[in-house]
Amino acid sequence: MVDKQLIESGNQKIEWARNHMPVLEIVRNVFEKEMPLEGYTIAMALHVEAKTAVLVDTLVAGGAEVSITGCNPLSTQDDVALALDSKKNIRCYARYGASNEEYYQAIDKVLESNPDITIDDGADLIFKLHTERTDLLSSIKGGCEETTTGIHRLKAMERDKALKMPVIAVNDAMTKFLFDNRYGTGQSAWDGIIRTTNLLVAGKNVVVGGYGWCGKGAAMRAVGLGANVIVTEVDPIRALEARMDGNQVMTMREAAPLGDIFVTTTGNRDILTREHFELMKDGAILANSGHFNIEINLEELEELSSSVRTVRKNIKEYLVDNRRIYVLADGRLVNLAAGDGHPAEVMDMSFSNQALCVRYIAENKLVTGVHPVPEKIDRYVAELKLSSLDITIDELSPLQSEYMHGWESGT
Amino acid sequence: MVDKQLIESGNQKIEWARNHMPVLEIVRNVFEKEMPLEGYTIAMALHVEAKTAVLVDTLVAGGAEVSITGCNPLSTQDDVALALDSKKNIRCYARYGASNEEYYQAIDKVLESNPDITIDDGADLIFKLHTERTDLLSSIKGGCEETTTGIHRLKAMERDKALKMPVIAVNDAMTKFLFDNRYGTGQSAWDGIIRTTNLLVAGKNVVVGGYGWCGKGAAMRAVGLGANVIVTEVDPIRALEARMDGNQVMTMREAAPLGDIFVTTTGNRDILTREHFELMKDGAILANSGHFNIEINLEELEELSSSVRTVRKNIKEYLVDNRRIYVLADGRLVNLAAGDGHPAEVMDMSFSNQALCVRYIAENKLVTGVHPVPEKIDRYVAELKLSSLDITIDELSPLQSEYMHGWESGT
Amino acid sequence: MVDKQLIESGNQKIEWARNHMPVLEIVRNVFEKEMPLEGYTIAMALHVEAKTAVLVDTLVAGGAEVSITGCNPLSTQDDVALALDSKKNIRCYARYGASNEEYYQAIDKVLESNPDITIDDGADLIFKLHTERTDLLSSIKGGCEETTTGIHRLKAMERDKALKMPVIAVNDAMTKFLFDNRYGTGQSAWDGIIRTTNLLVAGKNVVVGGYGWCGKGAAMRAVGLGANVIVTEVDPIRALEARMDGNQVMTMREAAPLGDIFVTTTGNRDILTREHFELMKDGAILANSGHFNIEINLEELEELSSSVRTVRKNIKEYLVDNRRIYVLADGRLVNLAAGDGHPAEVMDMSFSNQALCVRYIAENKLVTGVHPVPEKIDRYVAELKLSSLDITIDELSPLQSEYMHGWESGT
Amino acid sequence: MVDKQLIESGNQKIEWARNHMPVLEIVRNVFEKEMPLEGYTIAMALHVEAKTAVLVDTLVAGGAEVSITGCNPLSTQDDVALALDSKKNIRCYARYGASNEEYYQAIDKVLESNPDITIDDGADLIFKLHTERTDLLSSIKGGCEETTTGIHRLKAMERDKALKMPVIAVNDAMTKFLFDNRYGTGQSAWDGIIRTTNLLVAGKNVVVGGYGWCGKGAAMRAVGLGANVIVTEVDPIRALEARMDGNQVMTMREAAPLGDIFVTTTGNRDILTREHFELMKDGAILANSGHFNIEINLEELEELSSSVRTVRKNIKEYLVDNRRIYVLADGRLVNLAAGDGHPAEVMDMSFSNQALCVRYIAENKLVTGVHPVPEKIDRYVAELKLSSLDITIDELSPLQSEYMHGWESGT
Repeated sequence: MVDKQLIESGNQKIEWARNHMPVLEIVRNVFEKEMPLEGYTIAMALHVEAKTAVLVDTLVAGGAEVSITGCNPLSTQDDVALALDSKKNIRCYARYGASNEEYYQAIDKVLESNPDITIDDGADLIFKLHTERTDLLSSIKGGCEETTTGIHRLKAMERDKALKMPVIAVNDAMTKFLFDNRYGTGQSAWDGIIRTTNLLVAGKNVVVGGYGWCGKGAAMRAVGLGANVIVTEVDPIRALEARMDGNQVMTMREAAPLGDIFVTTTGNRDILTREHFELMKDGAILANSGHFNIEINLEELEELSSSVRTVRKNIKEYLVDNRRIYVLADGRLVNLAAGDGHPAEVMDMSFSNQALCVRYIAENKLVTGVHPVPEKIDRYVAELKLSSLDITIDELSPLQSEYMHGWESGT
Repeated sequence: MVDKQLIESGNQKIEWARNHMPVLEIVRNVFEKEMPLEGYTIAMALHVEAKTAVLVDTLVAGGAEVSITGCNPLSTQDDVALALDSKKNIRCYARYGASNEEYYQAIDKVLESNPDITIDDGADLIFKLHTERTDLLSSIKGGCEETTTGIHRLKAMERDKALKMPVIAVNDAMTKFLFDNRYGTGQSAWDGIIRTTNLLVAGKNVVVGGYGWCGKGAAMRAVGLGANVIVTEVDPIRALEARMDGNQVMTMREAAPLGDIFVTTTGNRDILTREHFELMKDGAILANSGHFNIEINLEELEELSSSVRTVRKNIKEYLVDNRRIYVLADGRLVNLAAGDGHPAEVMDMSFSNQALCVRYIAENKLVTGVHPVPEKIDRYVAELKLSSLDITIDELSPLQSEYMHGWESGT
Repeated sequence: MVDKQLIESGNQKIEWARNHMPVLEIVRNVFEKEMPLEGYTIAMALHVEAKTAVLVDTLVAGGAEVSITGCNPLSTQDDVALALDSKKNIRCYARYGASNEEYYQAIDKVLESNPDITIDDGADLIFKLHTERTDLLSSIKGGCEETTTGIHRLKAMERDKALKMPVIAVNDAMTKFLFDNRYGTGQSAWDGIIRTTNLLVAGKNVVVGGYGWCGKGAAMRAVGLGANVIVTEVDPIRALEARMDGNQVMTMREAAPLGDIFVTTTGNRDILTREHFELMKDGAILANSGHFNIEINLEELEELSSSVRTVRKNIKEYLVDNRRIYVLADGRLVNLAAGDGHPAEVMDMSFSNQALCVRYIAENKLVTGVHPVPEKIDRYVAELKLSSLDITIDELSPLQSEYMHGWESGT
Repeated sequence: MVDKQLIESGNQKIEWARNHMPVLEIVRNVFEKEMPLEGYTIAMALHVEAKTAVLVDTLVAGGAEVSITGCNPLSTQDDVALALDSKKNIRCYARYGASNEEYYQAIDKVLESNPDITIDDGADLIFKLHTERTDLLSSIKGGCEETTTGIHRLKAMERDKALKMPVIAVNDAMTKFLFDNRYGTGQSAWDGIIRTTNLLVAGKNVVVGGYGWCGKGAAMRAVGLGANVIVTEVDPIRALEARMDGNQVMTMREAAPLGDIFVTTTGNRDILTREHFELMKDGAILANSGHFNIEINLEELEELSSSVRTVRKNIKEYLVDNRRIYVLADGRLVNLAAGDGHPAEVMDMSFSNQALCVRYIAENKLVTGVHPVPEKIDRYVAELKLSSLDITIDELSPLQSEYMHGWESGT
């Protein structure tokens, strides 16, 4: 009964998302006609919410059977999970707030489907395949990886010669990282922070840890909301970019006593640690927008604190020497753990890349290693997206093409 | 039992807001010492949510008894309402989703407290006092009005010689409208739209109806989120400002077929009507950020529609000739009806003006009419706010003061 | 011979400006038909460059005789001055780089025309009329004042009961200060600074002294050019606005060691003084965008300096304890002294107000005192400007008008 | 005599630039000590203005002999050219407004120095070496190329197996194109346009042709100056970026009737042609910010025009069916032909890369082909630049480094 209502709520969310993912809709129409995934079993570990469900639907429409679980214990939306699980050819094992044990059990179950293809967001499936389920590796045709953090892990595995299957770095498609990581994270991180705190961004000192594509997005939107932005970086070129874009740039140690809101976006650990907590203002707010909950060192924060309590949904107050430090969503990625994640239109591009790369894996024999998204797919997604926006662009004339390829004309 | 949990949740929200309203906290400390409202009964009709609760608390700390109800059926947060009602010297009659009848009954009940001073947001209390409860007018010392729309009504009453009590136009304090209407509405309107739709603002055509302070805020933040902004206006000077600020400016009829998201902020009726609905794109999203739900003409939209259904929380889909038009929060102010309203730090200034103006009414004998906020109060609020932000500013030197007042030095 | 070429160059500049001042062109067409200034002599002290010349032309087209000189020794463009002087019914006495003595002699000469109406930018003509040429006051019908600084002087005179003629505060027209002071100063101050220094604004700390309309413009454009902006103010409300707009706000003493470029826009003296020079970085650049050259205290800077030399056109290097401090255009308003002043389209609105106010003075009998620009003129200028931009805006429907004036409808 | 003054003026400009190029200053100090270019002859074809002169000086300080000419007939500043030519070990052949014949003669003369290393901006020297002076090729150790357009030519030569020497693509250093092409072009293109026209950018429709790094810069600064920006592109991914950044995106044919100012930045020919001129508004302004004067098809514009005349310095008016179309600086790159080129701080990074790559060529034996700038040089330039801005950034801790290289930790 309650489940029936949840399923209805989940389906409503999925329909809304689907209506705002026009590129994936075109991919689905093609899949329905050509059934390129017939006979394929796909194992997925992604954030289980409405946009992901549209991807799952699309794969199933192309003939696949899908087993899915979450890639983060706090990003699952239970109504969507139930709605997915109620559909034909889909098994969903995700649950909001799963314990660590449950979380990894669900990954085990997904792998029990004996998959041909994997889709990861953070490489947890692939990691499990390479440690506890190496028996399954021989039947895997390939995998797709969604996020920067996962690519990092996979490239490290490749360097160590530990990687034993082909993986497409979906994250590195231009139509993925230029949009999802920048405009997606930029908006959804602030959506999560604002709806959780109901505080004003204008006039605040916002410290953004990292100036990669996610950090650029988070900083750009903070400026757009009226903040004074401070960026920290370890890369000198990105640091210069941050400065030329009008931000202040300094070490986190220098930024710690100035920040009103801190947002970490690095994909690395220990961005905010004891030495920073000790310097922060009363009332400082800490949010993480990176994939794993390792950017804010909560263990060190707890050690410093005389008390820890929840003061509002998704806000924990740590009391450090009478200064209140507020951590949002337990330091898990605030976009999803305290919001609905990236806007549908952005995931439209990312997941169209996913669907087309899965097809590419099914139809080609890739060698072991990390592969880029074929340029053709990337460009095709961009063209469909433009057309869904009713935008026409110029084409090179023959003379212009010739000029671009020639070298004889000068000043 | 359930109520007890709701009260706890309400109190938690109130505490969070209070911690982020440092100016009102200083006012409260003064009030607690000096008790300037001892013996006064205050009737309020404001959005009943956490920031308002902090204002109520402050007035009670100054010795007042307060009766309060909502000023909009969809902006009440029930947990906060219960928490308020459970406190000493406070009666709260607001309920989320109250019917029209209940809504006005609650206003009646508030007035039964036989108030000395009123605080309105939209002038409903004062209107009732001047129509059905004229018997109470003689004992009223004065009122405060929070919003542009209310000031409009009161000035119209004054012009018609219908106004029979002194009212302070709190909305017109510089520390109110320059901040609340601009930075507050700017952020909270987009908070409401984004959390309700989970759609991307970047790359959308956003049509903002009106370029007053609220419209300026809504447009500025839309730009900050990556939109291409179109402004409509009836005032030529504001229209020019909108253009010089980088927006497109046109009539609503011209904008109707272009807009992806429409936000009305005018305080007037019929900003979006049949002629516009007929021209809109499939998927257009309509939100109102003005005080009353009259800016989007929903009756005309319903007449045009072959079906109306809820497709997601707070989103109604109207089907017009196979085009889907989505209305958020039934055309009620999206900031509050689909979000938590303005950020606490902004309401801090607005409500400090309210508290200080209530005191001013209590301690002075004002003549009938609409009065500005005393400049001293306005400036005092600004100074306290700066100091709460740890900002020190320059002071005029004697030579500079002299120069500003002299006229004998030239080129 | 050389003069002939200069006149040709001046006329070319005037034609270019005229082609980009469509509102003033409409005013001129009306003036030519109706000749409202027939028989009037007008004395002017304005920046003598191309846009001003178009105003002079317009007045003469309406029947007036005009005598004009500059209002700043470094803002005159000699070719334009010669071109003006060569025209019928115009005498021009301005010269670039005039000495103080010549400057005031030219003002004397202008007044010798025995004017009916004056137009000032900084109130020098009116000041002279009230001190040395009180004999002329009785025949003066009125004056117009262009700038904030002049209005300050005139209001001070009014307060002291020293003002003996009616003056229209043209600066205070909405179509003047909202545009000229903000978008005009914003762009032209940076034009002057950039063309003089050829330095990058992106990534610099820019300190803007004052957050009035000129300061808002200068800060907004600095942000638009990629700077990190620090604002100083004496008014707490403006200081808060500056902060909420994303700038840092502090005292000039705190800003002095941080700034790479300083721009003063206050209309007051001593914004940058000895105590600030002593704290500045090696290489700091100082520019003034206020009317008079009193905002940077050059006397104190010279006292501190071991050497002063010109290192590039319009750049003086002051050596203070081995730190180089660069002053642009001798601290005179950098927009005009190191550039071509405000863009033509902005002056189009300001000078249309001037021309229409001159006509208003000619056709009405105003009492002594400082008068606002009639609202009708202000609105008319805005409407013509919109129409020159091919922009149509909405009009209130009868129901909307009624609603705006009624007060009976509520929630 | 006049020459002496010109030389003094040139030296003044060079000193000013040198004072604002701190990274190149450090390189020069190292060069002076280590003399890595002793015995090398360098041939250069770059824009001959102050920043370039500082590069030349630096190479000479490292022991080189330099022959230089311009890479564009309108970008030479004669005072700087004379100042250079008067120095030891430098011969300069550039002249402002050189005819086509003189221009190529100067290139011949530069090559007569029998160079070991070339530095090009547009590949004119290398082209000449591969056509008329192949006899010199055998003694060339390598070349450096400054700009996107030149890299295009060189890669085309490489594809055609026509390239016979090693060339370092200095343009493709991150510390070059991310800064010079974006922040440099962004600012200096608008500097050129504004100082030439004295028109307002705010409220204008600005059409930017191309959304590469130069186009991104030009669009970003147009927005920062208050324009409504329209972007045209041939690449779908860049087109999407432009849209998500808040711009309108359309074909040039659609943009032609809307634009007030057009800026081309593509490096390709025929961006604006007859079909566009026919649709443009009266008063449209055309500027090119790409390397060669081929982006605006002036031949077609002339054919359409009933008259062509100069109406202001650097502005030609073309009369097409009574519509005036204004072309700035004859369609040559407006940044340099109508301004002083990129800010010194930006060229500081670009030219430090040049100097260090010249040294790299001298000290290494490169194979034929187009080479990237060694990552170490790129990073070194970034680090020196940060330090010149007094910015310290974070360093990876051992744990963080390990994490970045590991792959075993997960959710």
